[in-house]
Amino acid sequence: MTSSNSSNISKFSNNNSNNNEEVKVMVPPLNFAMVAPGVYRSGHPNRQNFPFLKKLGLKSLIYLSPDDIREELDQFVKEQKIQIFHYRIDGNKEPFMEIEEKEISSALVKVLDVRNHPVLIHCNKGKHRIGCLVGCLRKLQKWSMTSIFDEYRRFAGTKVLADQEFIEIFSEHVPYNLDFGPTWL
Amino acid sequence: MTSSNSSNISKFSNNNSNNNEEVKVMVPPLNFAMVAPGVYRSGHPNRQNFPFLKKLGLKSLIYLSPDDIREELDQFVKEQKIQIFHYRIDGNKEPFMEIEEKEISSALVKVLDVRNHPVLIHCNKGKHRIGCLVGCLRKLQKWSMTSIFDEYRRFAGTKVLADQEFIEIFSEHVPYNLDFGPTWL
Repeated sequence: MTSSNSSNISKFSNNNSNNNEEVKVMVPPLNFAMVAPGVYRSGHPNRQNFPFLKKLGLKSLIYLSPDDIREELDQFVKEQKIQIFHYRIDGNKEPFMEIEEKEISSALVKVLDVRNHPVLIHCNKGKHRIGCLVGCLRKLQKWSMTSIFDEYRRFAGTKVLADQEFIEIFSEHVPYNLDFGPTWL
Repeated sequence: MTSSNSSNISKFSNNNSNNNEEVKVMVPPLNFAMVAPGVYRSGHPNRQNFPFLKKLGLKSLIYLSPDDIREELDQFVKEQKIQIFHYRIDGNKEPFMEIEEKEISSALVKVLDVRNHPVLIHCNKGKHRIGCLVGCLRKLQKWSMTSIFDEYRRFAGTKVLADQEFIEIFSEHVPYNLDFGPTWL
């Protein structure tokens, strides 16, 4: 771009790293990723993640954990007028602990309501419980089991719980409201 | 829902697995994931993935590879009127092969133009070259290096190439057009 063409300069980005602007580092929550248009996943956000979360413009947050939401996050979501849906469920732990299909179905009804978008679904580490929820969502999207498990393991790493079996067997009805369903389902 | 309430039934989904509808399995391309609103990543799509790709309603496709695009994909994108941007770059291979920063910058200009969205960025496996491109995109989004590397490794697995260094050092100007830039940057 030459100086004679300066009227066009503002149209283009100036993201050279050697400019003098203060560069604020954005810190996404642990295991943050996008699941589908309007739906994000992660571990439990902490104070460091608030500027990042603000940029997402979240309308709601779905939290899967028997624990209370952390005080600082609770305050943040109140300030930002973000709605919380809290499902007090524990993860699958063989041989005796199993997530209730009904709970996952209820959470999915919230995920599949565009009035709640953008929504962040999170547990503590963003690996197993959320992996389960996303896996069941992928079943509704009719993904092949191979691709569902690939995605699950991308986050769960080597510690793969009984979740894959749970996802495979999951057949609970998910009565989401078609009037407000996402276009991608 | 009772039968006396049948007028409302159509409002709600009927996704029980025991219905008689034919269930068509959707097969996403290898290492498929969503990067940001309007941007998807993956490995090279094959014939199995076409019904899935159709659902994404892609406007364009950015392909990073010295190889030609496969015949069947080429035909599919022509039928679907999807635009292809092909960058003939090879991956980083220590110690002598290095991706050109300018090439990644050109590709990012295409990624950051909403007129090309939804866009699928892909290489062959969806791990290293695309991991590089996404890492550089995250730098523009000002993500912390920790979270950029976490995401890179989620796809690259144990075979981590010189890409992390490339991403860290990347400082090429990316002159995308602000008039058509995504809201999330």
